[in-house]
Amino acid sequence: MNRFFVPPEAIDGASVSIPEDVSGQIRKVLRLKDGTVVQFLDNQGWLYESRIHYLDQKHLTAEIIQKRPAEGEPACRISLYIGLTQREKFEWILQKCTEAGVGQIIPVITERSLIRKASDVSSKQERWEKILKEAAEQCGRGRIPELLPAINFDQAVRFGSQAEKALFCWENEKQTSLRSILAPLRGIAREISLMIGPEGGFSEEEAAAAQSAGWVPISLGKRIYRMETAALASVILTLYEIEQ
Amino acid sequence: MNRFFVPPEAIDGASVSIPEDVSGQIRKVLRLKDGTVVQFLDNQGWLYESRIHYLDQKHLTAEIIQKRPAEGEPACRISLYIGLTQREKFEWILQKCTEAGVGQIIPVITERSLIRKASDVSSKQERWEKILKEAAEQCGRGRIPELLPAINFDQAVRFGSQAEKALFCWENEKQTSLRSILAPLRGIAREISLMIGPEGGFSEEEAAAAQSAGWVPISLGKRIYRMETAALASVILTLYEIEQ
Repeated sequence: MNRFFVPPEAIDGASVSIPEDVSGQIRKVLRLKDGTVVQFLDNQGWLYESRIHYLDQKHLTAEIIQKRPAEGEPACRISLYIGLTQREKFEWILQKCTEAGVGQIIPVITERSLIRKASDVSSKQERWEKILKEAAEQCGRGRIPELLPAINFDQAVRFGSQAEKALFCWENEKQTSLRSILAPLRGIAREISLMIGPEGGFSEEEAAAAQSAGWVPISLGKRIYRMETAALASVILTLYEIEQ
Repeated sequence: MNRFFVPPEAIDGASVSIPEDVSGQIRKVLRLKDGTVVQFLDNQGWLYESRIHYLDQKHLTAEIIQKRPAEGEPACRISLYIGLTQREKFEWILQKCTEAGVGQIIPVITERSLIRKASDVSSKQERWEKILKEAAEQCGRGRIPELLPAINFDQAVRFGSQAEKALFCWENEKQTSLRSILAPLRGIAREISLMIGPEGGFSEEEAAAAQSAGWVPISLGKRIYRMETAALASVILTLYEIEQ
């Protein structure tokens, strides 16, 4: 089934005013026929199953058949604080973590980040929002994850620690498992922060600063993940513990 | 710490005869100094912490300091049966699933596979073995996962069903969770088969055939993963349930 995010104001009780870009995609790219059922998403968590109709060759409308919560949207909002890294890897993280259910992504400049200037990556905002939107449509999310501007490590530690639980994924942590921390929160937690270091890991000072701000250092298991794999694994495993 | 797979016969009780390719990597690529401690792996699950010594400018030897099981190697062997797909995506799956702990990977030709001839991909065997080896060294595995030749769906169903548990990841399965099947096997299971469909999913006939051969259809959660993400998520989640 094809899914499209539209602005919330495009939806009234019974019909959808399809924005031009979505309409072009339906007509020219997907070539959907009159009467095809598709899903519109308002980026507030609602899904509108709708039937499209051609008014003429260029104009489309859609009647809403059913409104329901988008199933793929997690009830728990995951904020992923992630060491700033090179573009290709970062884009991979955006796409895959969206599929896994991340709520927002916050790039962080750490002591050992390979990329140290937010401006090195910030010019790509539009491209990245497209990646997030398309991944969210593909996997059945009800909201497009937000990508926030890059911040430094101290800010990240402060902001992220305000969630119900803040988990610091650290390869030097050998004891505390994700399960031991999250299992008691199953079906309950509504906001969790995850922090993943850059390629070179966190420094001891950073780990100490995070811990004194209330972050819990946890292990993702016995194998050493690359940073992008660690990011994805942390989101997959957190929602696996919290959701089911 | 640098890790290198060497043939088991390179190891005697007290020292390692370093093969030429590894020796070249130590001398020319990594430029490790005399006396550096590294880890050698025999691909049988053992790790040899060793100190390297230069005999002259070109020749190296290594004395074994300690022999112990490689921590990163799972006790449960995961066989991943995966729909044959395009090269780039397939290589991604090889690398990431190795990090996640897969034991062997078996490409499968299904009804909806985009790539249908095993010969389209088999010429890359050497390149792929290198990807597997490097990923296994990087993440601390004790064995390099095996990549088997592509087989058809009927064979895959038959071979895979001989494991202790065979899980068929299917987007049409909405009820049975991975947890409900695997939690009772925690710390016990030694062999699990996972099957992931191609981009277009499995046909109803394939799903029925797998089920009658004993595969259990399971859901990986509420969101629809791309095939490569599903492959990685299935390995991550299976070992998460079994290992911890």
